[in-house]
Amino acid sequence: MALKVHGSLASSATLRVIGCLEEKGLKYEFVRVNLQAGEHKKEPFLRLNPFGQVPAFEDGDLTLFESRAITQYIAHTYANRGSQLIPSDNKTMDTMSLWMEIEANHFDEVGSKLYHELTIKPMRGMVADKAAVAQHEEALVKILDVYEERLKVSKFLAGNCFTLVDLHHTPLIYHLMHTKVKVLFEARSNVAAWVDYLFTRPAWLKVLQLIIKHNNAAFAS
Amino acid sequence: MALKVHGSLASSATLRVIGCLEEKGLKYEFVRVNLQAGEHKKEPFLRLNPFGQVPAFEDGDLTLFESRAITQYIAHTYANRGSQLIPSDNKTMDTMSLWMEIEANHFDEVGSKLYHELTIKPMRGMVADKAAVAQHEEALVKILDVYEERLKVSKFLAGNCFTLVDLHHTPLIYHLMHTKVKVLFEARSNVAAWVDYLFTRPAWLKVLQLIIKHNNAAFAS
Repeated sequence: MALKVHGSLASSATLRVIGCLEEKGLKYEFVRVNLQAGEHKKEPFLRLNPFGQVPAFEDGDLTLFESRAITQYIAHTYANRGSQLIPSDNKTMDTMSLWMEIEANHFDEVGSKLYHELTIKPMRGMVADKAAVAQHEEALVKILDVYEERLKVSKFLAGNCFTLVDLHHTPLIYHLMHTKVKVLFEARSNVAAWVDYLFTRPAWLKVLQLIIKHNNAAFAS
Repeated sequence: MALKVHGSLASSATLRVIGCLEEKGLKYEFVRVNLQAGEHKKEPFLRLNPFGQVPAFEDGDLTLFESRAITQYIAHTYANRGSQLIPSDNKTMDTMSLWMEIEANHFDEVGSKLYHELTIKPMRGMVADKAAVAQHEEALVKILDVYEERLKVSKFLAGNCFTLVDLHHTPLIYHLMHTKVKVLFEARSNVAAWVDYLFTRPAWLKVLQLIIKHNNAAFAS
């Protein structure tokens, strides 16, 4: 089966899917969607995702979108390949489901807005909205306090093993570590140790290689 | 095991959990959290959910929050009770995962804002923000167009059977059917037929009975 990821390397959601494919040791083709040119809002991309958002994913005849639906598909379909990302016991599974919702509804909700203000807007020559940044930073502090408590009693979010929910966090944390909110992660010892670990995953290092390769190609062109 | 739902009947997320318990034919205690008095932002509620949002759920010693993590827990833990809410085949399961993300990231995202503007704000003596309503309505139109296409080829969102993802939609649709955006659902024949069906589920009728009972109690007090 030919696996394809359509997306942008500046998109945390795209990197979430690529990170998952790397954890599974699967071969895939990365198809760049130019977000600044609005390619995600036009055909032929809209045939892959009618909501016009990256990433979209193809596995042979199957088309999927929504990064977390794609990672769950990969983790289940290729359960016997590479890293085991789904817990085998029900209790850890329930805890993983809870933290998946926390990631999507709290961490990503606030973190994505900070990434947009602090990285994407300046990259496009726009100015960050200081009041919005202050408000989101305050929200992130409260969220990271909850993570710190969790990671005090458990090495990873779902339990004592790395699972899909930890992976779901890596790309956005990576993006935020290049902004001033980095200090909020570093100030919490359990969060900091968890983040350090996330970045040492061999699969994540492969994602970084892909980013560097494409950046070099962009500079060369 | 004693099951408890802490929440508000004005909250779609709370009704999502209650709807799931009713589908499973499980007995539970409903513990009202007074949102207007801010009980969800104070102890003892924060011990149940440090993010200060309803609902929270207890099953004996286990505490959970995030409505969709709770419904998944109930659907898996009580798989052999009441309605079967989880598909048995992988393909339908993958489709259900996708539509769960669409519900959370598109439908609920926009629909909740409309419910807030058109119902919650007027109920609290505030005025709806007309520009925001127009913007969210436009977004809802696009979202419902995607649902209409999906429901043209499949009776329910995941496939030909009612599953957890259909249930996840019911409470917010119910709330929106009491607002002017009702016409957007009615104008799309497949969406309209699906909504009609959702409201005839015996479990949903039990949720309505609970709402009526509590409303009567509120008027009597």
